[in-house]
Amino acid sequence: MNTTVVSVGADMFADAVAAQAVEVERVDWRPPMPGTEEDLATVATDPRRSAANRQAVQAMLGVTAHLVDVAPASEVLDLQPGQFLHAGPPIAWERTSGPLRGALMGGAALEGLVDDPEDAADRFAAGDYTLEPCHHRSAVGPMAGVVTPSMYLWVLEDLKTGRRTYCSLNEGLGKVLRYGAYSPEVLTKLRWMSEVLGPVLRDAVRTVRDADGPVDVTGILTQMLQMGDEAHNRNRAGTLMLLRDLSPAMVSGSGTPAEVSDVLRFIGGNDHFFLNLAMPACKLALDAARDIPGSTMVVAMARNGTDFGIQVSGTGNQWFTGPAQVAEGLFLGDYGPDDANPDIGDSAITETAGIGGFAMATAPAIVRLVGGTVPDALATTRRMHEITLAENPRWSVPVLEFQGVPTGIDAALVCRTGILPQINTGMAGAVAGTGQVGAGLVTPPAEIFPAALRALAAAVPA
Amino acid sequence: MNTTVVSVGADMFADAVAAQAVEVERVDWRPPMPGTEEDLATVATDPRRSAANRQAVQAMLGVTAHLVDVAPASEVLDLQPGQFLHAGPPIAWERTSGPLRGALMGGAALEGLVDDPEDAADRFAAGDYTLEPCHHRSAVGPMAGVVTPSMYLWVLEDLKTGRRTYCSLNEGLGKVLRYGAYSPEVLTKLRWMSEVLGPVLRDAVRTVRDADGPVDVTGILTQMLQMGDEAHNRNRAGTLMLLRDLSPAMVSGSGTPAEVSDVLRFIGGNDHFFLNLAMPACKLALDAARDIPGSTMVVAMARNGTDFGIQVSGTGNQWFTGPAQVAEGLFLGDYGPDDANPDIGDSAITETAGIGGFAMATAPAIVRLVGGTVPDALATTRRMHEITLAENPRWSVPVLEFQGVPTGIDAALVCRTGILPQINTGMAGAVAGTGQVGAGLVTPPAEIFPAALRALAAAVPA
Repeated sequence: MNTTVVSVGADMFADAVAAQAVEVERVDWRPPMPGTEEDLATVATDPRRSAANRQAVQAMLGVTAHLVDVAPASEVLDLQPGQFLHAGPPIAWERTSGPLRGALMGGAALEGLVDDPEDAADRFAAGDYTLEPCHHRSAVGPMAGVVTPSMYLWVLEDLKTGRRTYCSLNEGLGKVLRYGAYSPEVLTKLRWMSEVLGPVLRDAVRTVRDADGPVDVTGILTQMLQMGDEAHNRNRAGTLMLLRDLSPAMVSGSGTPAEVSDVLRFIGGNDHFFLNLAMPACKLALDAARDIPGSTMVVAMARNGTDFGIQVSGTGNQWFTGPAQVAEGLFLGDYGPDDANPDIGDSAITETAGIGGFAMATAPAIVRLVGGTVPDALATTRRMHEITLAENPRWSVPVLEFQGVPTGIDAALVCRTGILPQINTGMAGAVAGTGQVGAGLVTPPAEIFPAALRALAAAVPA
Repeated sequence: MNTTVVSVGADMFADAVAAQAVEVERVDWRPPMPGTEEDLATVATDPRRSAANRQAVQAMLGVTAHLVDVAPASEVLDLQPGQFLHAGPPIAWERTSGPLRGALMGGAALEGLVDDPEDAADRFAAGDYTLEPCHHRSAVGPMAGVVTPSMYLWVLEDLKTGRRTYCSLNEGLGKVLRYGAYSPEVLTKLRWMSEVLGPVLRDAVRTVRDADGPVDVTGILTQMLQMGDEAHNRNRAGTLMLLRDLSPAMVSGSGTPAEVSDVLRFIGGNDHFFLNLAMPACKLALDAARDIPGSTMVVAMARNGTDFGIQVSGTGNQWFTGPAQVAEGLFLGDYGPDDANPDIGDSAITETAGIGGFAMATAPAIVRLVGGTVPDALATTRRMHEITLAENPRWSVPVLEFQGVPTGIDAALVCRTGILPQINTGMAGAVAGTGQVGAGLVTPPAEIFPAALRALAAAVPA
């Protein structure tokens, strides 16, 4: 009798899978985004496109990100006092949102440029300091993404080419700079991160690198996706694997036992710690796919709290921007939708690479954080296959019978289907100094994809 | 257009779920196991049964297992030289299988009773040493499950009642005593475990217990089931969470930095390390459900490599045994089915409590280890709901929309449906000294459930 039951259950599931796969094939029958027909036709007949996109996908999938160092931004990026990096596309102080403003003010105080963060606003407004996107310095930053010279950065490297990407260390949750908070305890924690956490991690990362070879961050991501993490808003397993890989070297490093205990407790108490390694690993892969003439693949999605911007392989460093949206999701404590700032952060680099919202099917528990239902989560991953160029064979989803995550967003497919990339995200308070108010689901503003398509079409040789 | 696609995908999945739920309700239409009709009728009309099973379920679900100590078996079980615990129901030396025999011989050498493990066989045959099931001493042991006086044991406690259970420390994979290997390197590692690993863990467990309260093992199991572990053959997330919880205290304990580094590396390199905490946590819960007159709930399933035995709440400490089966699954290296010993170990206590094979749906990646397909894994968890009394609200399966795992096997439901409990297991080599040869899926011998039912029926008051 057992066998019958097994077959019935399995068949029903297989039927559902097949039914949804059939649905996926109906993509051709959707109307394209309004006004994109002519550009779609131009791009579709570009003789370079197919090979260019294949090259972009291969370049992206060929990258393995290794953790080679941890060092201050002043050292590895030559960041100078008064220079500030931030998330998203370029923006002037006047147009910055509350959380980015709060993080910049806190950053100025952290660097000793002002005594009181409140005093920094006038200096930014006067143009005394410079703002530059993380992305322009091979870096990424979650939420506000503010990087200042004293902050320690993860350094990831593609060992084949020596290319590197960078990201700050994750501060944990609650009142933290990246969500726009800048109270004294926020700055105290950031100072501890530069004085204790960074040096202890640097010792350990260098010891592991020199003794056993650098930690394979791409490989940890492979495991995470089999352990309920989607590597944007769930990074529990990743954080624990990082601890596993670094803790033996920490114990024998230069940190005192009390310092090492504190570091282990800090990392172990912050399920998001690995996010700041997932992000630069994704950027390292996507940067390999940049600047391929004719490729319609998206290589960056990023938000500064005001604008949502994308960059596409075939159009170089040009940003296509539109207004960042407010996420729909679940709120902390008494906060509600009115308290939330529009979408912010470079963390959508994870979705650009095929994880985060694109891999929700492998992390169904995420719906308890960002909202929605488990069937929604499964359907979202399936839907993202409709706008992507490939499956990533190294990053597979066990519950979808080990199908690779949908990776390599095709700007043309987005326009042709009207399906927008799905992003899981944290929500910052709109008022500078607030911190996190919730987490939820968001999409880019639709109009940036037709804008990118227009530029791609214009670049097609006559 | 998005919304339509989401709904379609979600509906298809919901349809499949609903269809399978309907299937579950057809349980009444299956023929019962041959010859059980009369006993089923007797037990079904036992006026005590419903309340007794409710009491058993509540007792089991009310237990939270906390990690309160790590100490040698000589200390916590008063185990004396020449006394050996083993997995499964009671067995005499003459009937022991290769892997149990190998582990006993190795254990005798470990304790210094003989110089060469090969010399121990005659001593066991002569009756110089005593054999006793782990289960008779509130303990459980994976595979051969051999416990000797010098071995350190995890000590778990139900803080409400002070009841305790025990399990040895996991040795890792490959040539290890629990799979019947007893070569010099096996014994060297066991000595290191008693000299370094055990004391370092004891320090850390006691420090955490006294400073922050003991580690909540049941709570870690809750998290594991959201992280792709089924806690029998996948214990990756659990092992990492244990490291997270104990490593800060290890650093400030009495171990030298080199010893602590070695311990962190040993645990971090053994994804199965947490199994030996999952098992006694399950036993602690199930022991609370023992000895309830009229209850048809299974409180232990265990194998000694020759016999598969179960114990049922309403029949006290009586074992119902039949021949252990050989698992079907995947083999290591050049090993094949002919090399495998029949099913062995107390680890089926995990399935008895509703995890392991019963929770395969939450750990689809397990099919790469034990064989089968992802739809099989989902169907297995659904099927186990047909023979269990309850869902465990603390142990939920995200992909099944957070349904609790099927828990509390009802021996009468097994007889009435003919559906046997599904167990994920490792496979030991049949020849003493071999070690592990594979992993796979196995069920108990069917006849032990009608035997238990017969005893339950006989105990129903006239």
